[in-house]
Amino acid sequence: MKLQHLLLSLLLLAAAATSEALVQDFCVADLTLPATPSGYPCKKSVTAMDFAYSGLAAAGNTTNIIGAAVTPAFDAQFPGVNGLGLSIARLDLGPGGVIPLHSHPAGSELLVVIQGTITAGFISSFANTVYLKTLIKGDIMVFPQGLLHFQFNSGKGPALAFVSFGAQNPGLQITAFALFKNDLPTELVAKTTFLDEAQIKKLKGVLGGTN
Amino acid sequence: MKLQHLLLSLLLLAAAATSEALVQDFCVADLTLPATPSGYPCKKSVTAMDFAYSGLAAAGNTTNIIGAAVTPAFDAQFPGVNGLGLSIARLDLGPGGVIPLHSHPAGSELLVVIQGTITAGFISSFANTVYLKTLIKGDIMVFPQGLLHFQFNSGKGPALAFVSFGAQNPGLQITAFALFKNDLPTELVAKTTFLDEAQIKKLKGVLGGTN
Amino acid sequence: MKLQHLLLSLLLLAAAATSEALVQDFCVADLTLPATPSGYPCKKSVTAMDFAYSGLAAAGNTTNIIGAAVTPAFDAQFPGVNGLGLSIARLDLGPGGVIPLHSHPAGSELLVVIQGTITAGFISSFANTVYLKTLIKGDIMVFPQGLLHFQFNSGKGPALAFVSFGAQNPGLQITAFALFKNDLPTELVAKTTFLDEAQIKKLKGVLGGTN
Amino acid sequence: MKLQHLLLSLLLLAAAATSEALVQDFCVADLTLPATPSGYPCKKSVTAMDFAYSGLAAAGNTTNIIGAAVTPAFDAQFPGVNGLGLSIARLDLGPGGVIPLHSHPAGSELLVVIQGTITAGFISSFANTVYLKTLIKGDIMVFPQGLLHFQFNSGKGPALAFVSFGAQNPGLQITAFALFKNDLPTELVAKTTFLDEAQIKKLKGVLGGTN
Amino acid sequence: MKLQHLLLSLLLLAAAATSEALVQDFCVADLTLPATPSGYPCKKSVTAMDFAYSGLAAAGNTTNIIGAAVTPAFDAQFPGVNGLGLSIARLDLGPGGVIPLHSHPAGSELLVVIQGTITAGFISSFANTVYLKTLIKGDIMVFPQGLLHFQFNSGKGPALAFVSFGAQNPGLQITAFALFKNDLPTELVAKTTFLDEAQIKKLKGVLGGTN
Amino acid sequence: MKLQHLLLSLLLLAAAATSEALVQDFCVADLTLPATPSGYPCKKSVTAMDFAYSGLAAAGNTTNIIGAAVTPAFDAQFPGVNGLGLSIARLDLGPGGVIPLHSHPAGSELLVVIQGTITAGFISSFANTVYLKTLIKGDIMVFPQGLLHFQFNSGKGPALAFVSFGAQNPGLQITAFALFKNDLPTELVAKTTFLDEAQIKKLKGVLGGTN
Repeated sequence: MKLQHLLLSLLLLAAAATSEALVQDFCVADLTLPATPSGYPCKKSVTAMDFAYSGLAAAGNTTNIIGAAVTPAFDAQFPGVNGLGLSIARLDLGPGGVIPLHSHPAGSELLVVIQGTITAGFISSFANTVYLKTLIKGDIMVFPQGLLHFQFNSGKGPALAFVSFGAQNPGLQITAFALFKNDLPTELVAKTTFLDEAQIKKLKGVLGGTN
Repeated sequence: MKLQHLLLSLLLLAAAATSEALVQDFCVADLTLPATPSGYPCKKSVTAMDFAYSGLAAAGNTTNIIGAAVTPAFDAQFPGVNGLGLSIARLDLGPGGVIPLHSHPAGSELLVVIQGTITAGFISSFANTVYLKTLIKGDIMVFPQGLLHFQFNSGKGPALAFVSFGAQNPGLQITAFALFKNDLPTELVAKTTFLDEAQIKKLKGVLGGTN
Repeated sequence: MKLQHLLLSLLLLAAAATSEALVQDFCVADLTLPATPSGYPCKKSVTAMDFAYSGLAAAGNTTNIIGAAVTPAFDAQFPGVNGLGLSIARLDLGPGGVIPLHSHPAGSELLVVIQGTITAGFISSFANTVYLKTLIKGDIMVFPQGLLHFQFNSGKGPALAFVSFGAQNPGLQITAFALFKNDLPTELVAKTTFLDEAQIKKLKGVLGGTN
Repeated sequence: MKLQHLLLSLLLLAAAATSEALVQDFCVADLTLPATPSGYPCKKSVTAMDFAYSGLAAAGNTTNIIGAAVTPAFDAQFPGVNGLGLSIARLDLGPGGVIPLHSHPAGSELLVVIQGTITAGFISSFANTVYLKTLIKGDIMVFPQGLLHFQFNSGKGPALAFVSFGAQNPGLQITAFALFKNDLPTELVAKTTFLDEAQIKKLKGVLGGTN
Repeated sequence: MKLQHLLLSLLLLAAAATSEALVQDFCVADLTLPATPSGYPCKKSVTAMDFAYSGLAAAGNTTNIIGAAVTPAFDAQFPGVNGLGLSIARLDLGPGGVIPLHSHPAGSELLVVIQGTITAGFISSFANTVYLKTLIKGDIMVFPQGLLHFQFNSGKGPALAFVSFGAQNPGLQITAFALFKNDLPTELVAKTTFLDEAQIKKLKGVLGGTN
Repeated sequence: MKLQHLLLSLLLLAAAATSEALVQDFCVADLTLPATPSGYPCKKSVTAMDFAYSGLAAAGNTTNIIGAAVTPAFDAQFPGVNGLGLSIARLDLGPGGVIPLHSHPAGSELLVVIQGTITAGFISSFANTVYLKTLIKGDIMVFPQGLLHFQFNSGKGPALAFVSFGAQNPGLQITAFALFKNDLPTELVAKTTFLDEAQIKKLKGVLGGTN
């Protein structure tokens, strides 16, 4: 193929490759529009800024009841993941810190330890089997979708991990908050969990629940 | 963990659990907005009323040509199923009642008999094999997606069933209505079904078709 | 089209419609082979028996700790649903009976009340909001995938419901069993749920947990 | 980057790019193993022959009852499409030829006319609306999943089209065959279609049905 | 069933078959509204025109740098495929024409040769194996999702093919255009492809790239 | 509920909760069996070891042509991700190290920088737009499925990142290897990429290609 021929026919190129102008490679969320079951409608105009995010760079504040912080980069924080079926969060665990028992209704989780020692586990629904591992720097662990799991700092110093999810918004349901941090009547909690009412009232007091 | 510590650090909790406020657990349909291939956009504000529905509580009127009634709770009737991939309908079959041959283009079906005796069948595309069963109270039967099937009351009294679908809107195409209750020319129906024109015209007359 | 012509050309028909013999309309589970992420391999030979099931016809035994019984027709019990993305279970609730707090990791749920009065609720992960409804005969309610929910008999006599799922095996994780019916150390349960150790030990005793 | 450096470090390359050896880019069907809901297990060893197929090159025999032939390249004929979610078939329509009313339970269809004039239509389940078009060479038409549709030669000479499907095995259920080419009792066909028994018996005779 | 009964009860029919009016069988794209990850919102009112398209009937102009033309019927050109998971394009290859090395990020491809001789190939990521075939009229070939592939006219006269995709918008990324037809700095192209800077600058000149 | 009652009815519990024993919460790959389109068949017996992996803990060897190493934990290395739709890899980039231009045919990618400074970019198929960002520790960036992208160390010291994928095996196709590290004839590479034959032969020499 001659260069001359190339140059001469360049003007004809755009017309030939008409499909080029119409491809939708991604769908950065327009959070101002109502979501749909598949995610948010797509923003019209995007830049490289839409595909990167610095919100996980700073450590979360672990001076709290759980000695830990979860900093998500789900679709609401990081609209670039909209429609791509994955997201990420940062876990900071102070000494003794705990990510309490929880599940993600809409996605499996993959954890990688960056610093410190973390013990993690999940509970299968088959015979309620517990799968428990102590992980060090560089280790990874997977938590299948929807199953109860937890992580806690089992080392001496602080610990850091990143957790990826197979969904743009995996959800997060912390069992203790679901039970004790709302207006679900104490009697109902007792009836559906076998817990004593005194225990329930005590934790409702701590976590801010009523009834 | 001391209760005091818990109480003291309570103020810090909201900030730590930032992901809590952003989760989209469900997507109740806003039927006033255009649908998308994944369903309707999500309503902004929901209550428990959005997740329950009483429209299937009353028996359908079976005093009609088929001696039967189908009462659906698909997304259009029950917006709470939007995005969840399942729906339900109530089948009332008077004595001799029939749900005519039909298919659901977008979902498999699971029937449970609540009252009476129902004979149901579906036709596979492999050698046109017929799978036929007579079902009594408490029996269930599954009808694979897109295949022609039917149900009829094979007992003496009325019959009742609930049918679930693996789609928020499975669709419903009744073969006789598709053939005889529209303006598809008689000649075309004959050509594509082998039926006699006299038969077609007769049923067009009964069901309200033209041409 | 003449009947004669039809009859004469009949012999040629099989050759023309060659695709007929090769369609896979369904995939009844062969439970003797290892499952895959999409379900079980398909049985070679099937009959109408494979698509119907009588295992939900009899009431479950509710003379137990929860005064209730869950009788599933998931893929393992009813291989006909394999690959079809839906399944069903029967809920029997004696007077005072309760289906304890639980979630289904892999599917949303749709409940229809057949007899009695059932109060049901689920807990969203957004602000831990509780969605609670009392349902009577014929009412339906939907429980979005992966969220904690419960049902209990709030009437005087026995209650019966059928629950459909948008998965051939939705899973079932009962929170109290996950916490107290295994060998997860009491200290870990306390650390990840805020529950008192005495409470945990008491319920481990009741439900058969150790450690 | 110097060429020397490139050459020197070549030996180290294989170790670095370890993921290269493990990728599963495709999954050509091993038809000797049982299928699963997601398709057939993958063949171990493949060649370029597995991804191409000449079975659609020859015209189908249209000397038959419908004056037409459907030649499929679904997974069973063309194992290379396994797991890829698409397939194709060749339609030959002699003068007056008809592809009778049918549906594909598991995939939408896209037709392109290569030769002749074809009139095609599908019937929606909304008000049984008919969407009908006469297509010439180069025209395309789409038939949404699971809906009844048909094609016939509306020109003078033979016609040829290729139809693609959004499934490796879309299925094919021809309405007339489902009704009249099996052992479904005449009484049942009548009850579920409103057709006269005489009409049914006549077509059972023609198409080879019994009962 | 008597005809009289049929006629008498006809008035009751509409009420009974209430689900009929609410089915969403398809979702023709409304291109004036923002897309979502599952496609465009659905047009309110449709006709048969929305499901057919004549834009592929005319040969593309092959008097250009590649001696070929790709004419797509993706969702942007043919809104009827929205939500249906398939689309099509027309390939015209003049003598010596080439569809340059490219991939489709979001769908597998199935090619059927209509005229001429086409040599096609794709490159697997396993050991970079090349699968290469020369195809004649009526032959088909499949190109698995996301893999690099190409087609070129290996006969004497012009060639024509249709390519179907398992996505309503498969995307199209031509490697040479991605490398040389934008403002990606020459140094970066060299660093990430091992190509010489002189080669890169030459092709940037030909294809219209800068930097 | 009295404790006595609880204890007395304990024996009845197992029978009631029959679904507990049949749930399939996960599907750890049995790599000895043939894969299917949805992944590998499930291992019969699993332990906590199956859900964790230490293979990413050690830095990859970056003394090679690209000054970088990719260490994957896809299904083949880490069978615990089978069926869960996500995986991860470790990127080590020595000073000046580069992950060459590549794409993942089957999944989007999410990168988090753990150490150093990484410049990353991807190329859209719309007008071949380049999205380029320089990322520091804690920054994340997303790369939409199937699009060409690259990463290189733009800092002084070594750099480390983890990349998650929305697929258990996203695939990896390095453009330079696909072009120059196989037996694809030089003439064909030239024809389909516009590269000069001399350039192609040079890189085939470096990377080990033939023809």
